[in-house]
Amino acid sequence: MDEKEVFRIGLELVKGSRFALLSTIGDDEHPWTKMMFNIAPEGLKKIYFSTNTSSRRVSHILRNGRTSVYFFDQERFVGLLLIGTARVLQNEESRKRFWVDGFERYYRLGVNDPDYSVIEFVASKANLYYSLSKTDFPVHGDNL
Amino acid sequence: MDEKEVFRIGLELVKGSRFALLSTIGDDEHPWTKMMFNIAPEGLKKIYFSTNTSSRRVSHILRNGRTSVYFFDQERFVGLLLIGTARVLQNEESRKRFWVDGFERYYRLGVNDPDYSVIEFVASKANLYYSLSKTDFPVHGDNL
Repeated sequence: MDEKEVFRIGLELVKGSRFALLSTIGDDEHPWTKMMFNIAPEGLKKIYFSTNTSSRRVSHILRNGRTSVYFFDQERFVGLLLIGTARVLQNEESRKRFWVDGFERYYRLGVNDPDYSVIEFVASKANLYYSLSKTDFPVHGDNL
Repeated sequence: MDEKEVFRIGLELVKGSRFALLSTIGDDEHPWTKMMFNIAPEGLKKIYFSTNTSSRRVSHILRNGRTSVYFFDQERFVGLLLIGTARVLQNEESRKRFWVDGFERYYRLGVNDPDYSVIEFVASKANLYYSLSKTDFPVHGDNL
């Protein structure tokens, strides 16, 4: 499969996924995985999540930004693993940009709730599993 | 929620899951996650997977057994993270015990295919996400 096709399949998966699995490295040096809402991906390069500032994920990322984000489709047996680095954003612009109606359920004080943070994940490389075959490929900023 | 109830909900999720997400630590020290068949769990304590001996997961585990296994139900918003240690089994007894009809698709030489290995994951602790609340609890061998 050529890189363009791999990228197309990966992008389709990311765009069609309501959820993504974010994995961080815990204080115990084990990988910790959690299902998160896939709120506003920018191609395969940047994936955004909202989370509680008090959450384990935030403390993991502040300690170690090495992370991955996994998308998959159980029916079609497609999986895309993005490997990259995450950081925690708490500025007003990011909070507003990634706010989604209904988030009051999780952040009672709304967009300015101090317990509301945005996680920005930036991918550097990827692995696509499709039709029983695996393909590694780099993720550049320009192939959004 | 008391520990017994947490355990019951976790066990129901594990038993009802065709898939589980196995996360390993890569050579790059990033977490790597992959969807795997959940073939024959023993309570919450031991989770088994079949995999290609030549796979990345096997090389990760041989280097570092620190792993996690994640189960979730997107519809019900339930997630169970098991944190523990994995090892690779290649003995005949394990190969036979965890062989599933149809695995010839992945291991062409059958149960004795050198590219067929079993991953045994043993949980030490867990985190259940249920009804918007999180509960940490230990996983003992006797609360299967």
